[in-house]
Amino acid sequence: MTMTGKPTLAVVGATGAVGAVMLQILSQHADIWGEIRLIASPRSVGRKLAVRGEEVEVVALSEEAFDGVDIAMFDVPDEVAAQWAPIAVARGVVVVDNSAAFRLDPEVPLVVPEVNPHAVRTRPRGIIANPNCTTLTMIVALGALHAEFGLRELVVSSYQAVSGAGRAGVDALRAQLSLVAGTELGTKPGDVRRAVGEDTGPFPEPVALNVVPWAGSLREDGWSSEEMKVRDEARKILGLPQLPVAVTCVRVPVITTHSLTVHARFQGEVTVDRAREILATAPGVVLCDDPAAGEFPTPADVVGTDPTWVGRLRRALDDPTALELFVCGDNLRKGAALNTAQIAELVASEFC
Amino acid sequence: MTMTGKPTLAVVGATGAVGAVMLQILSQHADIWGEIRLIASPRSVGRKLAVRGEEVEVVALSEEAFDGVDIAMFDVPDEVAAQWAPIAVARGVVVVDNSAAFRLDPEVPLVVPEVNPHAVRTRPRGIIANPNCTTLTMIVALGALHAEFGLRELVVSSYQAVSGAGRAGVDALRAQLSLVAGTELGTKPGDVRRAVGEDTGPFPEPVALNVVPWAGSLREDGWSSEEMKVRDEARKILGLPQLPVAVTCVRVPVITTHSLTVHARFQGEVTVDRAREILATAPGVVLCDDPAAGEFPTPADVVGTDPTWVGRLRRALDDPTALELFVCGDNLRKGAALNTAQIAELVASEFC
Repeated sequence: MTMTGKPTLAVVGATGAVGAVMLQILSQHADIWGEIRLIASPRSVGRKLAVRGEEVEVVALSEEAFDGVDIAMFDVPDEVAAQWAPIAVARGVVVVDNSAAFRLDPEVPLVVPEVNPHAVRTRPRGIIANPNCTTLTMIVALGALHAEFGLRELVVSSYQAVSGAGRAGVDALRAQLSLVAGTELGTKPGDVRRAVGEDTGPFPEPVALNVVPWAGSLREDGWSSEEMKVRDEARKILGLPQLPVAVTCVRVPVITTHSLTVHARFQGEVTVDRAREILATAPGVVLCDDPAAGEFPTPADVVGTDPTWVGRLRRALDDPTALELFVCGDNLRKGAALNTAQIAELVASEFC
Repeated sequence: MTMTGKPTLAVVGATGAVGAVMLQILSQHADIWGEIRLIASPRSVGRKLAVRGEEVEVVALSEEAFDGVDIAMFDVPDEVAAQWAPIAVARGVVVVDNSAAFRLDPEVPLVVPEVNPHAVRTRPRGIIANPNCTTLTMIVALGALHAEFGLRELVVSSYQAVSGAGRAGVDALRAQLSLVAGTELGTKPGDVRRAVGEDTGPFPEPVALNVVPWAGSLREDGWSSEEMKVRDEARKILGLPQLPVAVTCVRVPVITTHSLTVHARFQGEVTVDRAREILATAPGVVLCDDPAAGEFPTPADVVGTDPTWVGRLRRALDDPTALELFVCGDNLRKGAALNTAQIAELVASEFC
């Protein structure tokens, strides 16, 4: 805590794709924090990054780097978080972690402030986890609908942006687009693959002029880690440990903003009118749904914004208990940095 | 019928995106037909198109153009098909129509040769309809699974290529890609839209660096015509008029080859092993499913090929009666020209 009475924040992993967005968000929410300390791996030490209009020098990740810190936001690989979050906690820091390392730990709350804000208070390990970006794309809207209708089943398909794989994902798509734009590629088997060459970046196939039904690593029975995260995390956040969730995750050639189609089945009959009322007034949700006027969300319009955008709301024609939705959310903002910042602000309010 | 004893074929709408693929396919299946007559709108008359290694001159659509024709394949807009198919039939022609004009007519069979070949024989109006490309992307694989397991429900999301909207769709994506490649676009709200400008071609929003949750025209209660086609046509082809089908159609920046995620629920418990056996041996299906080896279908590999490619086969974790699939098919080949040619060949066999 600084002399101002405002808590000291550390940003661990300040130099990545999510870190860059985090510094923007911290600049927009400027009056929450006292000192903001930027921490990164040794190779970034000494770099200066702008936050709240000031240049702040990056310091190396070390035990001492956490001295005097009240809250730390981690955006680092799982294994770095697994090692360093407990070290920070031992120094008296509350950690908000955006890796997968702790999300399913029963002693670590998994928090979306619009859905389960009170969960932040019970954190026996001193750690609060931030959900995966794909889960976060849908969970605010689903939380609002669940509160009224009672969720019974989810079938989800994703249209995931390349920045979900970090700066390397963005670089790969941009490089591939430069190779395919202005050509006749995309009409013969393998022509895009030959043009792109062996280096497809962090993706197993070319992503320009293509969609790739894979994200993450292989889990049991052919499921991807990304698909398992959406199922496990949605269940934990909503407090529905038995909720049936079927997910297929697909990468698309979009820079930033994940989209999902959601088939959501509820306990009883639902109406579109009531669902519209709920979504139109739910905090953090924008209902953008007037197809007669050409209105539905797309990543090109949603990128750079904070809310969850919901469109194409329909009741299933053959099941009066089910709704269809198309949902978009900026995977670097609400999908990562913003939700982490919101959790940290919930904790910060305890310091006042 | 020509002197060779082989039937005479007319291709109506020979100059479009599907027509071009049709001429390739007719060249590959060269020994089925006697004369092949190319028919198009008056503005294309006199153009010469290559089929079976010969240049054939396009003739104008007229009543007389059908004289001596045994079978005509129509790939023209709905209203042109609605007007001209009955005229051709009155001249003694069997019409195979790829428009939506007759697909739901109870006196017109809707045929996928791998699924319901016998339906071609009962055609009281002399017309056989070819399904929509999105329906065709999944229906061969689903037909095979249904024959064994008994289908009970479908939840489908599409990743549809721009050539589903014809040459104009391809031109629009190529023009947009030239504007966005080599830029930093795709990171700020509306930046892609501003770069692309007002002319988004046949799509309601830019499709480069974007996905657009809309295809077709608006139907009741917010459904798109494309979504209704998938539901209505799947029910008719499978002979399951009450099948619950929930579909969301989304356009993606891919030139050719539609992809679908399918959540298919069956009458009883299913196993992945048996489903793999069925799909591995089903005519017209290629099982491409070994994620440990990085094997799953993508449009970049599937484009230009005939089969339905199935990957990411999993049993739903929370429902032993449901399977998840990711399916790809070339929307101009099996999705349009190839299936039409296959139907025409079934009819041609009656002439032998």
